[in-house]
Amino acid sequence: MHCSIARTFAALDDAWSALILRDVFVGLRRFDVLIEDLGISRKVLTQRLLHLQDSGLLSATAYQLHPKRVEYALTAAGLDLVPALLALLAWGDRWKAPQGPPALLSHHGHPVKAKVVCSRCGEALDARHLHASAGPGGRRAAGTRRMYLALAPRARRSAR
Amino acid sequence: MHCSIARTFAALDDAWSALILRDVFVGLRRFDVLIEDLGISRKVLTQRLLHLQDSGLLSATAYQLHPKRVEYALTAAGLDLVPALLALLAWGDRWKAPQGPPALLSHHGHPVKAKVVCSRCGEALDARHLHASAGPGGRRAAGTRRMYLALAPRARRSAR
Repeated sequence: MHCSIARTFAALDDAWSALILRDVFVGLRRFDVLIEDLGISRKVLTQRLLHLQDSGLLSATAYQLHPKRVEYALTAAGLDLVPALLALLAWGDRWKAPQGPPALLSHHGHPVKAKVVCSRCGEALDARHLHASAGPGGRRAAGTRRMYLALAPRARRSAR
Repeated sequence: MHCSIARTFAALDDAWSALILRDVFVGLRRFDVLIEDLGISRKVLTQRLLHLQDSGLLSATAYQLHPKRVEYALTAAGLDLVPALLALLAWGDRWKAPQGPPALLSHHGHPVKAKVVCSRCGEALDARHLHASAGPGGRRAAGTRRMYLALAPRARRSAR
């Protein structure tokens, strides 16, 4: 997959994984607590926790040995994903929360909303001022549709 | 669902929807072009396009009447989601792109990476400096686990 959005979603697997990361972030770190909170089946939660560990987003540390019980924590990559999840949360607060934000975030004690800015100039990113092209890890090809090829190669092109 | 992350993923449905938004963002706006690019079935693409329209992220405008053919565009809500998707893309570039970023973005002509900052102080958001609590649209409840209840109510609590 030559697209970092696709790879990010592959690491997340699905919405459950994002909600598991959210829960671990707010301090719900044990299997039974996650089960109770998410209303998810044990089988699905087990699968998602393994996938998040395989993807390098969660780590597990035993807090009891007989029987073995583990506590989950965000890895460096998992912690680094939180701001992007908060950018999604801010969007949901703007467009899908008619009764007001379900959760409020504070940052160093003051209220915060996540804002996505340009790393270079600091301006709030606006989709209309952006242009995409092939990067070093992208698939380059002759022709005029460079952006097309860069961002979204057809599956069968990968085989070449 | 008392969580704007959950609602955002519900609007997206799944990873395909994020990739469809990405494609429309980079200019792939017609059904057959999307089919070719994504390697997705016509049935799944049709479902996802309808869902994205129902969720208010995509609009469809006819460009041909006999037979009817439409072109998709991001709505205001869809355009507003792009920066959050770019925050996911930046994460994927950092953690899931060992060969370098597949795509490069430019913003007003200079290279850009999306960066998620605090809307108040402008500092890059770091998960370790954030705290969450119940907001106006959240579910408040007595007890000590206010954050727990605010961010992640159990499904059966919604029925009360």
